[in-house]
Amino acid sequence: MKIYDLIIIGAGPAGMSAAIYAKRAMLEVLVLEKEAMSGGQIVQTYEVDNYPGLPKMNGMDLGDQFFNHASDLGAEVKTGEVLEIKHDQPVKEIILKDGEVLKTKTVMLATGATHRKLGIPGEEELTGLGVSYCATCDGAFFRNKTVAVVGGGDVALEDALFLSRMCEKVYLIHRRDEFRGAKILRDQVTKNDKIQVIWNTVVTKVDGNERVESISIKDVHNDVDKSLKVDGLFIAVGTAPQSTLLKDELKMDERGYIVAGEDGVTNIPGIFVGGDQRTKNLRQVVTAAADGANCVVSVENYLQKLELPDN
Amino acid sequence: MKIYDLIIIGAGPAGMSAAIYAKRAMLEVLVLEKEAMSGGQIVQTYEVDNYPGLPKMNGMDLGDQFFNHASDLGAEVKTGEVLEIKHDQPVKEIILKDGEVLKTKTVMLATGATHRKLGIPGEEELTGLGVSYCATCDGAFFRNKTVAVVGGGDVALEDALFLSRMCEKVYLIHRRDEFRGAKILRDQVTKNDKIQVIWNTVVTKVDGNERVESISIKDVHNDVDKSLKVDGLFIAVGTAPQSTLLKDELKMDERGYIVAGEDGVTNIPGIFVGGDQRTKNLRQVVTAAADGANCVVSVENYLQKLELPDN
Repeated sequence: MKIYDLIIIGAGPAGMSAAIYAKRAMLEVLVLEKEAMSGGQIVQTYEVDNYPGLPKMNGMDLGDQFFNHASDLGAEVKTGEVLEIKHDQPVKEIILKDGEVLKTKTVMLATGATHRKLGIPGEEELTGLGVSYCATCDGAFFRNKTVAVVGGGDVALEDALFLSRMCEKVYLIHRRDEFRGAKILRDQVTKNDKIQVIWNTVVTKVDGNERVESISIKDVHNDVDKSLKVDGLFIAVGTAPQSTLLKDELKMDERGYIVAGEDGVTNIPGIFVGGDQRTKNLRQVVTAAADGANCVVSVENYLQKLELPDN
Repeated sequence: MKIYDLIIIGAGPAGMSAAIYAKRAMLEVLVLEKEAMSGGQIVQTYEVDNYPGLPKMNGMDLGDQFFNHASDLGAEVKTGEVLEIKHDQPVKEIILKDGEVLKTKTVMLATGATHRKLGIPGEEELTGLGVSYCATCDGAFFRNKTVAVVGGGDVALEDALFLSRMCEKVYLIHRRDEFRGAKILRDQVTKNDKIQVIWNTVVTKVDGNERVESISIKDVHNDVDKSLKVDGLFIAVGTAPQSTLLKDELKMDERGYIVAGEDGVTNIPGIFVGGDQRTKNLRQVVTAAADGANCVVSVENYLQKLELPDN
């Protein structure tokens, strides 16, 4: 049975970048992706304008370019969902949902993260058409427009401040009567003329035909409904990693992100992590791609020292 | 006088990526580059095949794509060499060689690093045509070929091991009779059938017309000259950061790289560093580009807390 040097779980920018670096390093590498299409989260992104060197890319096309770059180098990509990783031996076993077992010397986890959804009507349909989960990614498309941010943590406050620099007006909608975010951010929000805070309020619906035109909001105390005209809705109610593989053994932070530095080295020998699933400051295509490259260097260092039993 | 939010020194991948992120964040940003052409080290690279999504790029073209991405977003790039950075006030001053003074709230150092040269005939002429300073970058072009690596430190040993996976034969040429590199690497090199170590020997000349065809080597003890047929020469005799700006104040490692994590935060408030100039494992286009994005987030955090005196 074939023993891979590296099996990468997840075919987003982190995974495909790792595949590119691994193939160029002549490693035996396989990428596993549970979705029919590779690319990860960017596949659902209407336009990615901040991957340096490739401006104004449709997310699906950018995913394709990563995929093609890796496959042209000979990277093998397989559709399959991982059920379990057994790592008690130097040669690890990956068990797929359909029962297939794969063997590998190292594993890179690159299954990414997802933004928490509000779960309201119109949210899914208008994602990428005015509904966004990332102000850093999409804020620049809302120059001189009116937008709303939903949330009350650090990210929501940061997003509101960030958007206030380019937007005409920013509503910051929070279901409670105080923010959880840091004091310095709360102070900046209060001082900012462009930001109007709407307390004790939830968003119940996103309205619009081709694009977001308005949102329906409801006061949680008196149940009064209102409509608010906005061009964009930024949802900042938290993120969560996609996968819970090895969750009882990997060191994770309180939100479930796997603890690792930029080298992608985790607390389990031979298991590496890159992309949005790792503890990091900035979750972007370019930082995921850099993680892929860094992980392969860590994999190579690990393989150089690996002693396999003769058999 | 205009006060910039951010002045970036160096227009390579790290600097241009930071310019892209800064413009999208609506910061007032200026990029300074001392060379007439932006792009940094990659400008001298014949082919860059490992920037994910943009395979087989001529280095100069890749530099242009970064530049165009940033300028299309409105980034200002100016030719000028920095003489001094004064940072004792919240608004810092950058003094150029021609005497011009620029004001900015933050500075990102992105002047990169250079590989040490051997300084022998043919080296410069055949760089990119068989002479390389980066096995990770260029090794894949030498599949089933014969190459030589020069050096005796960790990087030279790692490069020889890396190249042995794709090349038919690897000469490892070292001017002393023992390696400085780590024991584990020395052991791996000794065990490797494809690597032939040539001790007490220096390379005196690179020969070839269109591409490297052979190298001249000399035994340092008996002064005997020999010619060695190779398709490539990998020079691994060390790297050094390009710039010594703020060298007495910035915390640096023993080789002169500025100490910073992936957030680019240095020991001087408001001074950030990204790209090859930073202490890091892997110096590549994609990791430099990721540094640019990360630095802008750190700059934004810094600016949010910055109190400027009224005047």
